[in-house]
Amino acid sequence: MQWYFVALLLTFLTSSQGILTTLSQSNGKYLYDYATVPFLAEVFKLVLSSLLVWRECQISPSTRMTTEWKSVRLYVVPSIIYLIHNNVQFATLTYVDASTYQIMGNLKIVTTGILFRLFLRRRLSNLQWMAIILLAVGTTTSQVKGCGEASCDSLFAAPIQGYMLGAVSACLSALAGVYTEFLMKKNNDSLYWQNVQLYTGGYENGSWWQRLFNGYSITTWMVVLNLGSTGLLVSWLMKYADNIVKVYATSMAMLLTMVWSVYLFSFKPTLQLFLGIIICMMSLHMYFAPPNMLLDLPTQVRAAPESLKEVTVERRTDS
Amino acid sequence: MQWYFVALLLTFLTSSQGILTTLSQSNGKYLYDYATVPFLAEVFKLVLSSLLVWRECQISPSTRMTTEWKSVRLYVVPSIIYLIHNNVQFATLTYVDASTYQIMGNLKIVTTGILFRLFLRRRLSNLQWMAIILLAVGTTTSQVKGCGEASCDSLFAAPIQGYMLGAVSACLSALAGVYTEFLMKKNNDSLYWQNVQLYTGGYENGSWWQRLFNGYSITTWMVVLNLGSTGLLVSWLMKYADNIVKVYATSMAMLLTMVWSVYLFSFKPTLQLFLGIIICMMSLHMYFAPPNMLLDLPTQVRAAPESLKEVTVERRTDS
Repeated sequence: MQWYFVALLLTFLTSSQGILTTLSQSNGKYLYDYATVPFLAEVFKLVLSSLLVWRECQISPSTRMTTEWKSVRLYVVPSIIYLIHNNVQFATLTYVDASTYQIMGNLKIVTTGILFRLFLRRRLSNLQWMAIILLAVGTTTSQVKGCGEASCDSLFAAPIQGYMLGAVSACLSALAGVYTEFLMKKNNDSLYWQNVQLYTGGYENGSWWQRLFNGYSITTWMVVLNLGSTGLLVSWLMKYADNIVKVYATSMAMLLTMVWSVYLFSFKPTLQLFLGIIICMMSLHMYFAPPNMLLDLPTQVRAAPESLKEVTVERRTDS
Repeated sequence: MQWYFVALLLTFLTSSQGILTTLSQSNGKYLYDYATVPFLAEVFKLVLSSLLVWRECQISPSTRMTTEWKSVRLYVVPSIIYLIHNNVQFATLTYVDASTYQIMGNLKIVTTGILFRLFLRRRLSNLQWMAIILLAVGTTTSQVKGCGEASCDSLFAAPIQGYMLGAVSACLSALAGVYTEFLMKKNNDSLYWQNVQLYTGGYENGSWWQRLFNGYSITTWMVVLNLGSTGLLVSWLMKYADNIVKVYATSMAMLLTMVWSVYLFSFKPTLQLFLGIIICMMSLHMYFAPPNMLLDLPTQVRAAPESLKEVTVERRTDS
């Protein structure tokens, strides 16, 4: 399977997540307990991965599975990071409002790039760094509050603690991603076996079990299925592609959700959404296009004299 | 003289234009007739260029000056294009409001790139095309109406004629620039002689002469001097650099003016201004940086196995 196909599928599924979640509401309210959804998605991923490990072992008895405690215990790390992240997120929201928090969330794109470089030792060209910055700028642009929108608080008015916690939150969420990539790639273990370990890791931190399937509709189940599938696609990308590919897929998904909302929920399209889409498209092309596609010739800033002569001759034949 | 030094000077002078014009007002009103300012700036440019031609002829009798009517008459073309452009501009403003007109003005950046390619036959790499689009997006982003700003009309609400005329206006203004570049570069004539022809061209179209220097202050004279100097710098760039360099200089100047306004006129800085500046900086770097500065290594999307082993070894020595 090609990584860009998986990334495209992830973009599509992630973008439909918000839409499905909205559609699963009844008169703007959840008839079910939303906290049960991520839990069931985890169960779905765990069950599916277990089945796939089992099938893989049936087919080829040489399936690689590291079962040493020393390796297995590392799979708890991402869920611990997410647990800390959730608490920091909660603390941040006591200082800043939700829309400022959303804007600050784009910082995660840049911190992912930095941790990717520092911890995974992956080199990025200057152009790729610029592309990553532009991706963050593009998603932020699309979220700029439109003229006359409800809340109008200045983005720069929150206490300094709010911004610092926002930065910590961006680092933690990038760290969890980068650490997961490290885990997935550190050996040639079966992806499904790695998934089983990854999805088992998170269970101690939840209090989701108590709730039941009250008010579940078909759409709710689709939300669960969607969330579970995106989780599986993300692990696939972490093993066979990388964090940056994932960041691009989810950023594009965010923009795609906004475009869908224009049609489905008669969301008013803003100029900033349009600008954000162009910026992110340029960034995508800058990051992934092969260099010879970007720079076909070493062009010069000054005019080459021969091209000028050409123009002159043309004009003379005209007049 | 290096082209980037001239471009920097142009950026600085253009950005101070708006500031000086505002400072030349008294209690928010002009005490002088503003229409006299561009006229005097033209006179300043013509006088200075004539003096420089004269001095150049004194120093070297071989100063190149094409005086055939066939060549001289072409210098009227830019002022004719500007005359048409001013009328189209006026017509556009009957359909769209001033802020929509300002936003549409950024289209000129892209049309300049296109006409530059078509008429001057200059090749641009894909990356440079992307940089030009990003420059237009960046300047537009900085102009996105902030939350709670006075006028809140939708940008997409004007009649279609308004947008079509806006597009024609962007093409005409780009055409005038590209045609001027063609004139300046078509032979090795003295820059000052070319300037004299260029600045004489415009006089038939003005009715500025009637007004006198009523209410002129030192600041007003500085506005005149500034406008005249920027005109001279633009011709210099047209001859020794190109239209794209000019577009970058004036776009950066627009952003710089907004930054200055924050300090001088306690203009409220917006998130979109900040985003616009980042986008334009990236665009600048993408357009002008040498390829080897942008792409130091052909990096791969997939992880290189050796770098992963490195990480693994590290982790093992840690635990």
